[in-house]
Amino acid sequence: MTFTLRSTQIEVPEGMIDFGVGQPGPSTLPGAIIQQAMAHRAAQEDALYLSYGPEQGDGQFLECLADFLSNEYGLPVAPTSLMVSGGASQALDLIVSYFSQPGDTIFVEEPTYFLALPIFRERGLNVVGLPMDEGGLIIEALEEALKEHSPRFVYTIPVHHNPSSVTLSAERRQKLVRLSEIHNFYILADEVYQLLTYTSAPPIPFGTMIESERVFSLGSFSKILGPGLRLGWIQAGPTLLEQLMNVGFVFSGGSLNQFSSHIVRSALELGLQQQFLTTIRQTYRDRSDALCQAIREHLGETVSFRTPTGGYFLWAKFPQEANTSDWLRAAAEHQVRFQPGINFSSDSELKNYMRFCFAHYTREELVEGVKRLAAALKTNRN
Amino acid sequence: MTFTLRSTQIEVPEGMIDFGVGQPGPSTLPGAIIQQAMAHRAAQEDALYLSYGPEQGDGQFLECLADFLSNEYGLPVAPTSLMVSGGASQALDLIVSYFSQPGDTIFVEEPTYFLALPIFRERGLNVVGLPMDEGGLIIEALEEALKEHSPRFVYTIPVHHNPSSVTLSAERRQKLVRLSEIHNFYILADEVYQLLTYTSAPPIPFGTMIESERVFSLGSFSKILGPGLRLGWIQAGPTLLEQLMNVGFVFSGGSLNQFSSHIVRSALELGLQQQFLTTIRQTYRDRSDALCQAIREHLGETVSFRTPTGGYFLWAKFPQEANTSDWLRAAAEHQVRFQPGINFSSDSELKNYMRFCFAHYTREELVEGVKRLAAALKTNRN
Repeated sequence: MTFTLRSTQIEVPEGMIDFGVGQPGPSTLPGAIIQQAMAHRAAQEDALYLSYGPEQGDGQFLECLADFLSNEYGLPVAPTSLMVSGGASQALDLIVSYFSQPGDTIFVEEPTYFLALPIFRERGLNVVGLPMDEGGLIIEALEEALKEHSPRFVYTIPVHHNPSSVTLSAERRQKLVRLSEIHNFYILADEVYQLLTYTSAPPIPFGTMIESERVFSLGSFSKILGPGLRLGWIQAGPTLLEQLMNVGFVFSGGSLNQFSSHIVRSALELGLQQQFLTTIRQTYRDRSDALCQAIREHLGETVSFRTPTGGYFLWAKFPQEANTSDWLRAAAEHQVRFQPGINFSSDSELKNYMRFCFAHYTREELVEGVKRLAAALKTNRN
Repeated sequence: MTFTLRSTQIEVPEGMIDFGVGQPGPSTLPGAIIQQAMAHRAAQEDALYLSYGPEQGDGQFLECLADFLSNEYGLPVAPTSLMVSGGASQALDLIVSYFSQPGDTIFVEEPTYFLALPIFRERGLNVVGLPMDEGGLIIEALEEALKEHSPRFVYTIPVHHNPSSVTLSAERRQKLVRLSEIHNFYILADEVYQLLTYTSAPPIPFGTMIESERVFSLGSFSKILGPGLRLGWIQAGPTLLEQLMNVGFVFSGGSLNQFSSHIVRSALELGLQQQFLTTIRQTYRDRSDALCQAIREHLGETVSFRTPTGGYFLWAKFPQEANTSDWLRAAAEHQVRFQPGINFSSDSELKNYMRFCFAHYTREELVEGVKRLAAALKTNRN
């Protein structure tokens, strides 16, 4: 290569262990599965997957996806409630830009997915953070905020939250839906970690609570197969989906990812996605265990955290006076990086937090990374 | 399939010949090529193509694309001037929504690509149509309009225009760039038909006129390989590309089509795209010839048109008093459809025009379609 490209999600210098990288590592990319799926698709002797697809997505893919989700959720999912997206980030942008006006308010959780904040702000939304506890978004705080604001959206990551790893309780989900009906806001539920659960089943997803047409649920193959596929889905009621299908560039280009959806359709038809999910759940659970143990062992009592029950992330809390951003330089000198808490705040708070991803590295690398971090923090405090 | 999906680009009832379908037909979809390309990619034993890609696109893909374009254009194309898109429609939406404000003006050609109009209008742009002649956009008309408006963009399809099939002359391209520098507007050049030229080489594309950072050129594999791949590219100067790479959802999701770009990289490395281009140029040229001859033979003197030199389309003019929309019903009764001229007008004009696509059907089908149309028009006039 003769030139260098910036890559927000994957730019890690050689030798560095970067807990900030929130994606699968090379050893958990499904090369063999996609190879089989591509061969299967090519063997169909129907090249229509290389043509434009329907705006909603290919019907047979949507049926496979609906079967897969029905099976995973233990609840019926209708293919008509699904629409193909080019990943959850594209879906977020698509929805907020066509269902709101600049100046509208969006409530987000504090903390929230840091790369969602620029998407909302670019579209002119007024971002207001709401507190969470171990049960997820605090509904009383939402009710309080509704006295002051009339939000267009509440953006929530209701399951194995990024970064905090908490899951919104079933009771709070019901309350949130009820409030959306009363106050006429949309719930934008980023449920990309729904199927990555390790130790206990999460509550039923918002994707199955779409009757009143106040909910958009976002799913993605980025977390359960490969992010490079740029394949996700939106689950919503028919009126909402109809509006998304009428968006100009969707109308012009058809299915937002016709090609990938057919490869993944083969992976679903062959049962490969289902097998892979079983494998990565075990892998990530093992990695999470290794990370938790290493943090307890090497970072000791200055840090507290909740043991993740799924997802990609561990959210570590340091003493109130800490500012984890200040530690980045010392960490880099020890060949380790992380995401400081402030990145996940809509209001430049959460300075004493740190996000670890356990999905990218092997157990050994995770332990090594924590040791380096411990050494860096020791230096930093001296 | 248990449910029906709307598909703007491909919805044609059984038995109907629809000249309105502006895409490759089943016989020109590159099934065998994509099969080889997928096998080649899978054999690389590097699964990183399933991970997030850099925001600009994979560097090695961009190098392959730059080599391919340099060769086709006979002019050097720098890989750094290219960015991956999820197709030209997505690129159009991305650019207008991040480089303009609602209320800004966009000049379009009259006629123009009908599915671009909703994209511009949704983003709040004020669309103003400018006339064309056989040399493309009339620069004097643009100069006149610049006295009244300060447009943010001029949207042009400068080569093998959709629908009119004309190509903007080299001299007018120079003038347009000069005007963009003086009046500070962006040229949004939809150059997706640049490589689909049959009888004469077009002028150098706007993609090679990007120095002053007033030009966005859009290219796509939709027209030269398969639209289902949802793979295109934006060519622009470094400051403009940098801004696109900083768009929130691009920053979050990385390369807009990592997976497809690696499959197409294999097609480029293996020389398959280049071979395919030679084949489809001949096929489309033959089809265009067949269509022209059939129109002359069966529609006679009431219609005039320019013989296409490339692209997908033939633009037929009927007598001034004709309204081609009125003929759709009679045409449907004869199992034939077309796009009436009014669809391509920003101002509900062009009623006496009709667009034919010759890329979708075989020669025999095209001739049959024209015969049906002739029969329909005869009925209609009685």
